[in-house]
Amino acid sequence: MSTSPPLPSNAAAVTGQARTIDAARARSLPVDRLLLRAFLRAAGRPPLRCILPDGEAVYVGDGEPVGDVRFADRATLYHVLRAPEIGFGEGYTDGRIEIDGDLTEVVAAAYQPVATWVERLVFRARRPRRNSHRGARHNIHRHYDLGNAFYRLWLDARMLYTCAYYPTPDATLEEAQVAKMHHVCRKLALRPGERVVEAGCGWGTLALHMARHYGVHVRAFNISREQIAFARAQAARAGLAAQVEFIEDDYRNVSGTYDCFMSVGMLEHVGPDHYRELGAVIDRCLPAHGRGLIHSIGRGRPARLNAWVEKHIFPGAYPPTLRQMMEIFEPFRFAVHDVENLRLHYERTAAEWLARFERHAGAVRAMFDERFVRAWRLYLAGTTVAFRLGLLQLFQVVFGRDRFNGGPWTRAHVYTDAGR
Amino acid sequence: MSTSPPLPSNAAAVTGQARTIDAARARSLPVDRLLLRAFLRAAGRPPLRCILPDGEAVYVGDGEPVGDVRFADRATLYHVLRAPEIGFGEGYTDGRIEIDGDLTEVVAAAYQPVATWVERLVFRARRPRRNSHRGARHNIHRHYDLGNAFYRLWLDARMLYTCAYYPTPDATLEEAQVAKMHHVCRKLALRPGERVVEAGCGWGTLALHMARHYGVHVRAFNISREQIAFARAQAARAGLAAQVEFIEDDYRNVSGTYDCFMSVGMLEHVGPDHYRELGAVIDRCLPAHGRGLIHSIGRGRPARLNAWVEKHIFPGAYPPTLRQMMEIFEPFRFAVHDVENLRLHYERTAAEWLARFERHAGAVRAMFDERFVRAWRLYLAGTTVAFRLGLLQLFQVVFGRDRFNGGPWTRAHVYTDAGR
Repeated sequence: MSTSPPLPSNAAAVTGQARTIDAARARSLPVDRLLLRAFLRAAGRPPLRCILPDGEAVYVGDGEPVGDVRFADRATLYHVLRAPEIGFGEGYTDGRIEIDGDLTEVVAAAYQPVATWVERLVFRARRPRRNSHRGARHNIHRHYDLGNAFYRLWLDARMLYTCAYYPTPDATLEEAQVAKMHHVCRKLALRPGERVVEAGCGWGTLALHMARHYGVHVRAFNISREQIAFARAQAARAGLAAQVEFIEDDYRNVSGTYDCFMSVGMLEHVGPDHYRELGAVIDRCLPAHGRGLIHSIGRGRPARLNAWVEKHIFPGAYPPTLRQMMEIFEPFRFAVHDVENLRLHYERTAAEWLARFERHAGAVRAMFDERFVRAWRLYLAGTTVAFRLGLLQLFQVVFGRDRFNGGPWTRAHVYTDAGR
Repeated sequence: MSTSPPLPSNAAAVTGQARTIDAARARSLPVDRLLLRAFLRAAGRPPLRCILPDGEAVYVGDGEPVGDVRFADRATLYHVLRAPEIGFGEGYTDGRIEIDGDLTEVVAAAYQPVATWVERLVFRARRPRRNSHRGARHNIHRHYDLGNAFYRLWLDARMLYTCAYYPTPDATLEEAQVAKMHHVCRKLALRPGERVVEAGCGWGTLALHMARHYGVHVRAFNISREQIAFARAQAARAGLAAQVEFIEDDYRNVSGTYDCFMSVGMLEHVGPDHYRELGAVIDRCLPAHGRGLIHSIGRGRPARLNAWVEKHIFPGAYPPTLRQMMEIFEPFRFAVHDVENLRLHYERTAAEWLARFERHAGAVRAMFDERFVRAWRLYLAGTTVAFRLGLLQLFQVVFGRDRFNGGPWTRAHVYTDAGR
């Protein structure tokens, strides 16, 4: 295992020099103002004041503005008018768009009033490109191999980079991540001695949790080299290396049979063209009493990921609708037992990540640079808003063999004190 | 309201004379035995002994047979070989097929070993015909207007003809039907004073339960004349006529706006070609904080209803997969909050209905005739088996407006003692 991977190309892309554009502070022209006003009206009159390069303010909202959006130059303004998601994201990253006010609230104000027809223009319903084995490895490397030290700055102590489960609204992120692990284990009703395969295991914390608290044997797959190295070190420290095996490989290469299939936060990276293939993998590895859980970011309606996030943060990612997820199960002998939507739990999780990220922005800047800090700040704020406004959902889907009658009789065991 | 509707055409169809066929007890021919053996092998060698008209037994299963299936004549045998579901159902109804052994276990033995490829032949994946307003009324009339006195013989005391919810496996049917009503109300987190529209309200018991225990106002729709008459009488007796309005009309004519949409056991009769239309109805009647619950028999994979049940018991009915159900929600601004599969609760419910039906078979025979008793016995036994073997599922889907953030924080309230 390499402990010093090459600098991920994503970091390189984000930390590079600002592109040279014809953007000295030109005076605004009357047409800029006209076009911006038309754009803001079409976007549902968000309560945001836009400040043109010469300081002139444009506002079409009702009531008090939530914040100001300052454009440093006309090229940046026109980039936003032409391609709002990409233009705003890149302009903000470059420091050519500045925000006066709370970034999360400003992003929320931009999305809140968006009418359905605008949303349909902005959301692109086309399917994303396919994720080959090699392409998947490249995409995962770009995001998850930014360095464990980076993620340690702002994730919880156990390094869980997926939606937490807050049993009560006042729980801390650390408590909620532990509760999430118990929540998914209880949903599967894991029993000591069972064999679990985990597809996309992150830094290995859930795999170790299952082994430690539920007495199961785990084989956990991940194609992120840095995460697998971290996971193996965790297992060795915990004395669980004999009970939990971490494998640096693609989920499509899972072999063997298991009592349970567990996947938390991987489906987003699989791509809808591969759901049936994923279903075939699960079908191959589950016996007649087999069951599984898939936890994934999703959508209420089909749409591609935010264009800027897809380009700069999560290449190859796609959040499916429930209907699309059914392509995993319906071609095979599976039945869905339980679906829970934890959308607002992800809003809380992402908001907490953003707050911790801000507290360590100086350290992130020292690791990368200011452009990287700005890009990730926007990504975390945008994620918070997307869950708050229902542009993203979080689905936990429990499924099992269609004729298996030995599962829990109701879902009450997930909620009893004994279960906690 | 008419209190004496014309005899439903379904009852007429089932109670009519046995069709005249060339079926005096002919000697079996060697080809009969050969074809039957080939058929039984293709069907996965079920542990059933088939007795030909001349008394010869054919058995290809392993171990002890679960029961005997006796064919009275060659025409009946060939009807089964050509169209197993229809042939068996009609033969049993006519008394030309007799069962030695427990009917439920014999039906289970027939379906248990069915291989996927046979299932695909037997299940017909085509969509059923469309249910026009008039066609729907006709289809519903045929099943639900068989007479309240008939259903009173074997349903629970409150006349609930949908899957019960057994909080513990030892609950009675009466307890489980009350628990089911609380379960769906808690899932929607009904609050006093809210307005609920119910689509397909049966005999009105859930509507009255919601009003009595949760303080809501209900407008409940149903196109079964007998059921609506019964429901109105119930409301008057309970002094709830001002709080619960029963309307004899199609769900497509629902007007007004409501806090909640509730539908338990209607979707089976809507048909997949009308799901988007149903979604539009719900979209029209729910405001920004609106939410709803749809409870329906479903499938793990797309398939039409058992051909005999569709022809003789439930004309126009179709159990959807979850993927098909998403056609109700995804075109509109809804998000699915929760899906629960209560398959084995329906097995228990149907088995209990069958036991009660058998206890009152004499009374049913006096109301209709022996053929009717046999047809309904087979339908209830087949339903029990279909849920046991995973050929049918039972989905409760909770959904809400995609941006509504005021719902319950977790699902724990459904399971707390306070909630019970």
